[in-house]
Amino acid sequence: MADLSDSHEFLAFFDQLADAAAEATLPLFRSRLAVENKLGPGHFDPVTAADQAAERLMRDLIAAKYPDHGVLGEEFANVASESPYLWVLDPIDGTRSFISGLPIWGTLIGLKHDGAPRLGMMSQPFIGERFIGDCRQAWYRGPGGERPLNTRPCARLADAVLMTTSPRIFPKMEGDIYDRIESQVRLPRYGADCYAYAMLAAGHVDLVIEAGLKPYDIVALIPVIEGAGGMVTTWDGGSAADGGNIVASGDPRLHQDVLRRLG
Amino acid sequence: MADLSDSHEFLAFFDQLADAAAEATLPLFRSRLAVENKLGPGHFDPVTAADQAAERLMRDLIAAKYPDHGVLGEEFANVASESPYLWVLDPIDGTRSFISGLPIWGTLIGLKHDGAPRLGMMSQPFIGERFIGDCRQAWYRGPGGERPLNTRPCARLADAVLMTTSPRIFPKMEGDIYDRIESQVRLPRYGADCYAYAMLAAGHVDLVIEAGLKPYDIVALIPVIEGAGGMVTTWDGGSAADGGNIVASGDPRLHQDVLRRLG
Repeated sequence: MADLSDSHEFLAFFDQLADAAAEATLPLFRSRLAVENKLGPGHFDPVTAADQAAERLMRDLIAAKYPDHGVLGEEFANVASESPYLWVLDPIDGTRSFISGLPIWGTLIGLKHDGAPRLGMMSQPFIGERFIGDCRQAWYRGPGGERPLNTRPCARLADAVLMTTSPRIFPKMEGDIYDRIESQVRLPRYGADCYAYAMLAAGHVDLVIEAGLKPYDIVALIPVIEGAGGMVTTWDGGSAADGGNIVASGDPRLHQDVLRRLG
Repeated sequence: MADLSDSHEFLAFFDQLADAAAEATLPLFRSRLAVENKLGPGHFDPVTAADQAAERLMRDLIAAKYPDHGVLGEEFANVASESPYLWVLDPIDGTRSFISGLPIWGTLIGLKHDGAPRLGMMSQPFIGERFIGDCRQAWYRGPGGERPLNTRPCARLADAVLMTTSPRIFPKMEGDIYDRIESQVRLPRYGADCYAYAMLAAGHVDLVIEAGLKPYDIVALIPVIEGAGGMVTTWDGGSAADGGNIVASGDPRLHQDVLRRLG
């Protein structure tokens, strides 16, 4: 955080952004509106409505407080800027969980400085928990109180709990590679989206492998994963900050092993 | 509930059982113990420990209050009895979610009378929500307050949100049938266990298809699903009360259509 001298101010602002997003998303989560308007083109789509309303609220707050900062979000056009600061937003990561009533979606808020992800938060407003990181440390606030986040040691693939969105979303070649790795882990688990990375940071999951991520799917999570002691890169070991095929590990030894298998 | 003249007393007792189970499970959910003792034979297994402690507490409460009732649970031997009442318990349904820190597991408590499931509850103590049903109605208590549970209309497979534990757990023949159905739904979603049925009862999911369930995986959920207006049977349309290959639908029209495809 040497580059973000006012990180305390930024962190308080992250909570403001997450609170604003919650105001837009919670009323539509598990709502009867969501039940009654689920289908077809032309119908009201509560997920898109919640997504857009939440991103609009966050963008307005950013524009008011940091008018020179850039913004990259899922729902609206990028705001470029000459500022070294870029906010990266995904109001609802895990829309399939949101749609189906499962409270394992999250609002992702990331802040890049000079091109590198520096601060990040995942907020789940229904449960009321937040996972926060600054690349050097990571911490948690939720029903169980407040505590630091630390990955757990797990050097061997055979001992690993692996998460991915779905074994069926990989393109053919990536799917074959993924399947070989999945067949060797202790436990595979599907469908957690941002929660996969949050649980890795919290030391309950050892490995997350995904393909085709957008920057706003991962930028906010990088400072949390790294702050908790984990690693997150592309499958070829490069920076995860632009998305793509992503692998995250709680234990750097496991990460090196898995990179060899993904290469 | 004509057969259970003291259903109010039973329902209060369900809450006592769920509270007792929560005392045993919550301290081990996302615990450092769980992080540090995850591996291998001979190591402390927090999920099994929580499972057994919770079932023991519930069995003790049942034995004290209804000493003549039978008990069927996941962790200990059946208690047979001459009583027409049989309690069916699964302290942690969704152990893979429990292991990986995701709060979408639940404690299942069912009560059969004269062989038929009559009252049921799914309790998720970390989120603090309970789904309850008596075959004629179903209701919810949680962070969003208290409300009735009702399935939503969805007559066509093409409009359906489908849930299953994993597309990879089906035996070959069942897997082929499942895959054909999955390919025709609007959205498939994996890994929710008891939450799949709870979300079906709440009107967010239209269809759940699973194979190889045990009675304690499903008995508690039958009164919730039916009370909310849904249907739950075996793949060949028989009673779901003994487990097996199970299908549940929020809309009876969809259920008939899917039974034809499963047959």
